[in-house]
Amino acid sequence: MYNFEFKNPVKILFGKGKISKLSKELPKHKKILLTYGGGSIFKNGIYDQVKEATKGFDMIEFRGIEANPEYETVMKAVEIVKNEKIDFLLSVGGGSVLDATKFIAAAALYEDDDPWDFLAKRYEVIVEKALPIGAVLTLPATGSEMNGNSVITRVETQEKLAFGSPYLMPQFSILDPEVIYSLPERQISNGIVDAFIHVIEQYLTYPVNSPLQDRMAESVLLTLIEEGPKVLADKTNYDAAANFMWSATMALNGIISVGLPQDWGTHQIGHELTAYHGIDHAQTIAIVLPGMMNIRRKEKEAKILQYAERVWNIKEGPVDERIDKAIEKTVEFFESVGVKTKLPDYGVSIETVDKITERFEKRGKKIGEKADVGPDQIKLILEDRL
Amino acid sequence: MYNFEFKNPVKILFGKGKISKLSKELPKHKKILLTYGGGSIFKNGIYDQVKEATKGFDMIEFRGIEANPEYETVMKAVEIVKNEKIDFLLSVGGGSVLDATKFIAAAALYEDDDPWDFLAKRYEVIVEKALPIGAVLTLPATGSEMNGNSVITRVETQEKLAFGSPYLMPQFSILDPEVIYSLPERQISNGIVDAFIHVIEQYLTYPVNSPLQDRMAESVLLTLIEEGPKVLADKTNYDAAANFMWSATMALNGIISVGLPQDWGTHQIGHELTAYHGIDHAQTIAIVLPGMMNIRRKEKEAKILQYAERVWNIKEGPVDERIDKAIEKTVEFFESVGVKTKLPDYGVSIETVDKITERFEKRGKKIGEKADVGPDQIKLILEDRL
Repeated sequence: MYNFEFKNPVKILFGKGKISKLSKELPKHKKILLTYGGGSIFKNGIYDQVKEATKGFDMIEFRGIEANPEYETVMKAVEIVKNEKIDFLLSVGGGSVLDATKFIAAAALYEDDDPWDFLAKRYEVIVEKALPIGAVLTLPATGSEMNGNSVITRVETQEKLAFGSPYLMPQFSILDPEVIYSLPERQISNGIVDAFIHVIEQYLTYPVNSPLQDRMAESVLLTLIEEGPKVLADKTNYDAAANFMWSATMALNGIISVGLPQDWGTHQIGHELTAYHGIDHAQTIAIVLPGMMNIRRKEKEAKILQYAERVWNIKEGPVDERIDKAIEKTVEFFESVGVKTKLPDYGVSIETVDKITERFEKRGKKIGEKADVGPDQIKLILEDRL
Repeated sequence: MYNFEFKNPVKILFGKGKISKLSKELPKHKKILLTYGGGSIFKNGIYDQVKEATKGFDMIEFRGIEANPEYETVMKAVEIVKNEKIDFLLSVGGGSVLDATKFIAAAALYEDDDPWDFLAKRYEVIVEKALPIGAVLTLPATGSEMNGNSVITRVETQEKLAFGSPYLMPQFSILDPEVIYSLPERQISNGIVDAFIHVIEQYLTYPVNSPLQDRMAESVLLTLIEEGPKVLADKTNYDAAANFMWSATMALNGIISVGLPQDWGTHQIGHELTAYHGIDHAQTIAIVLPGMMNIRRKEKEAKILQYAERVWNIKEGPVDERIDKAIEKTVEFFESVGVKTKLPDYGVSIETVDKITERFEKRGKKIGEKADVGPDQIKLILEDRL
């Protein structure tokens, strides 16, 4: 494995009833901004639980963060934070609300220029400070509750970009699996696929002799395959909900990929599908991944074969046949949990493929674990999904 | 799984050459005490690397921490810390040096009474503050580099006891697998077994529906079984050394056992063998574990069967036969990496069994994952190893 540095100081409070511990985790005598989405937290009772647990705290609210949080929206929150002299941000929602809150936390303390630069000039403009964040997670999927990453969308330019910083790790995240009981099926489906592909992005690259990290990545995949369908069959199955929720967190808190190369190409291509067509994030990566595996089967051969064997028990046959079967199994799994995997399933045609290819061409930045995947290959990957 | 809270803020710097990063991690303008053992760090060059990396820091040294760190020794260091107004402790050594340093860190700021109470009255006298600690690990085994636990021995009363606190987690730990190149074979053997049994103590209890934690525990066991022998065959095999070292850390940083019951009975009995006979820690638990599995096969049945299947591929046959085979495989593995597993191998006879049984009788505290294992069962466990 490669040399690495790892530090993840997020405090996790996991289990039923944990939202009631909120008051112990929040800073006293500070001004808090509660951030949330469209209001589902009113229907499922989480808003009430949060209000009950935060009685006596000086808290104002910012409502209306979208499923793909928009720059235009979060900048409004930044204004409020500055005007109201907010000290602490409490995110109550899924990955989108939390990602938005991370951007707000960094932008509120950034005076130099437009904070969009954190994303547009990701490796030049670095987050050097941020307001502290706490999170109540209402939807397992993105892993944002135990990392410093964030993805923000800019509507005017149809861009969806990522940034990250250790300063954006929540101080605490409360994970109560009971939040799953009231989720729409589509969000559960998306969450399972999202967590699964987070692992794949860190796992399906090239071998660097890392058996422990590989076994741990497979552990998350196997658990999602086992527990995901149980949650879909009965979302009030607490054990299954808990196992799914913890899998989604472990998928992207960094521990399974220390010292490893990572890909994230599937995400980068998927983001474009959301930017152009508003397709759910998990759906976009479920579309792209099988194409990525198919077109890049040579570069990823050793790891795909390991994945085939250890996750799907595919041990015999010629190499290409095993890879085909692994792709097939992956597609079957996504479809079985209710996520379609072809572009036409979402009404997307060849025109979008061309637009996305052009966009990568213009950016001039290659993707993939070796940063050698250019527009030609991206085109093939997308065409594979038509 | 059960509800849990988890926070592990230790920063890990992993890989060859990482000791040179020490100066970036140490606090500036503070007085540092460098703690170490008998002087092996002079022979293997680690002392020189540390001195080179800490040029310009205000640092004094405390040498002579034993393999089972003694209360009498660490109290001398506590005096030095107080007299010299030390601000930061830098442990350079294996688990023993680090455990000693943790005790020093807590005891130096404890004015109420004898700090031995942290161990003797573990759940009444709690660590509420401690000096900050950093670590350069010279021996993979105990996992102490990424947790807040410590074990100290008191010679006059022949006691070896554990304590722990989040305040005792190192701020950083540097893990350079190259330290393994110069280790005596016995320490490598012990380290493999120690890490293995750390996992077992968190894994072989009773089922609470925790597939992810179980798969992760098995990941560490499988990696130790695969990589341990490679390190013993060639300790300059960097990849194997790195995989072994990271496995030992992951075995006891808490992540594999969130929300699970834990046992630690094998350790508690093993500590008595060290206290009475000075047997190496890993050797003591290699002796006790097979007896623990054999005598408590009913209580641990479901988890032993899972272990048999997932770690040793033992899938068929009557329950007791599968359990027997799993114990056999475990013993074979320990012996194959050079750690004997019977009391007579270490010259221990029935008299010691009686003394240890009496001691647990006197303490009146039962052990095991359900705290229901009393002196009678402890006697049977030890007799099983005669």
